[in-house]
Amino acid sequence: MKIGILGTGIVGTTIGGKLVERGHEVMLGSRTADNAKATAWAERLATQSAQPGSAKHGTFADAAAFGDIVFLCTAGSAALEVLRLAKADNIGGKILVDLTNPLSFSVKSTPTLYISGGVNSLAEQIQKAVPAARVVKTLNTVTADVMVNPSLVAGDHDMFIAGNDERAKAQVKTLLHEEFGWNTLYDLGDLSGARAMEGYLLLWLRLWGTLGTPNFNLKILRSIS
Amino acid sequence: MKIGILGTGIVGTTIGGKLVERGHEVMLGSRTADNAKATAWAERLATQSAQPGSAKHGTFADAAAFGDIVFLCTAGSAALEVLRLAKADNIGGKILVDLTNPLSFSVKSTPTLYISGGVNSLAEQIQKAVPAARVVKTLNTVTADVMVNPSLVAGDHDMFIAGNDERAKAQVKTLLHEEFGWNTLYDLGDLSGARAMEGYLLLWLRLWGTLGTPNFNLKILRSIS
Repeated sequence: MKIGILGTGIVGTTIGGKLVERGHEVMLGSRTADNAKATAWAERLATQSAQPGSAKHGTFADAAAFGDIVFLCTAGSAALEVLRLAKADNIGGKILVDLTNPLSFSVKSTPTLYISGGVNSLAEQIQKAVPAARVVKTLNTVTADVMVNPSLVAGDHDMFIAGNDERAKAQVKTLLHEEFGWNTLYDLGDLSGARAMEGYLLLWLRLWGTLGTPNFNLKILRSIS
Repeated sequence: MKIGILGTGIVGTTIGGKLVERGHEVMLGSRTADNAKATAWAERLATQSAQPGSAKHGTFADAAAFGDIVFLCTAGSAALEVLRLAKADNIGGKILVDLTNPLSFSVKSTPTLYISGGVNSLAEQIQKAVPAARVVKTLNTVTADVMVNPSLVAGDHDMFIAGNDERAKAQVKTLLHEEFGWNTLYDLGDLSGARAMEGYLLLWLRLWGTLGTPNFNLKILRSIS
């Protein structure tokens, strides 16, 4: 599959690297076509990959146009501007996988969520910005390494998914199973479920501090019988 | 121990009932000393308990004055007014266990959090309202039945705790272990950790809808070493 990735940070390069490893053609998009991090990523993968040339880079618009499916992997605060640069026409009715979190680092002590609890989510704002796209929220509740390698965390643990388009969610679930190795996926319903997934980040951040590692995740345990 | 409970809803009566069963003297406080729910609760326990008379009821002020330790079990939206009625002088430097959640039911579809994410918590507002009290946040992340009976959920699962006073937290941890049967307690640090515990409620509420039962909880799984 051809995959466009918006964002060249740790999430974008990790997701992109894994998908190249898995045999996909991936274009990493950034503000400029010659972004240093994207170039280094593509060069590193060109030497490692069985399929040289499958790791590409370009602008946000290039990556959005290139992908059959597009991953949004920027900082939450940049997401809406990046979509503007990527251009809605390049995304069209494609699946847009939203991995962002609306975190603010303006308060010194700990990051905070800048969307007030429960009445909106960044994912829903993203859906409004590209109304034809089929936005699916997932993977935002774990650190990048765990996103593409759940076995880094011991035991069977859980991922969440939310989105308005059932077929798009089904396709992303298959991708999470087959390419990344996720087993248990909780479908939280329509895209308003993203409010819950983004709101959890406050606990995730605090647990990172408590545990001393970002390599952890949740398992939901249920009532007996 | 003498225990004061503020609130006669499902959380207050469940916590109070369990503590009476465990041999403590419990006073359930409400706006009026003859609150119907508190009276029915006390009468029911009087017939069941090995120690008749150990289940009492009174005003919020009566319950706050009665307890060596006080549990705040009201709706989040009522918490600050209830503390005003209970009177800070009656609480003094006691441990105040805060089980509340800042949920709003004004939006029809799903409850929402009315505190904006990550920069404040209801627990911190409560601490400001009764500055001498040693506020400890815990138990707000599970349904009432699971609070006092964690074995309702299969497997070993986790509870969180936060507060500014280490000795108060240690005492509440002991109570959670010995009276309610909790094993794994994650200490999220000072009372700002309550932001994370309250923010999680969005995910808890959504999972309740997805799972069809409130009898569930989280287990934190960590990286393989």
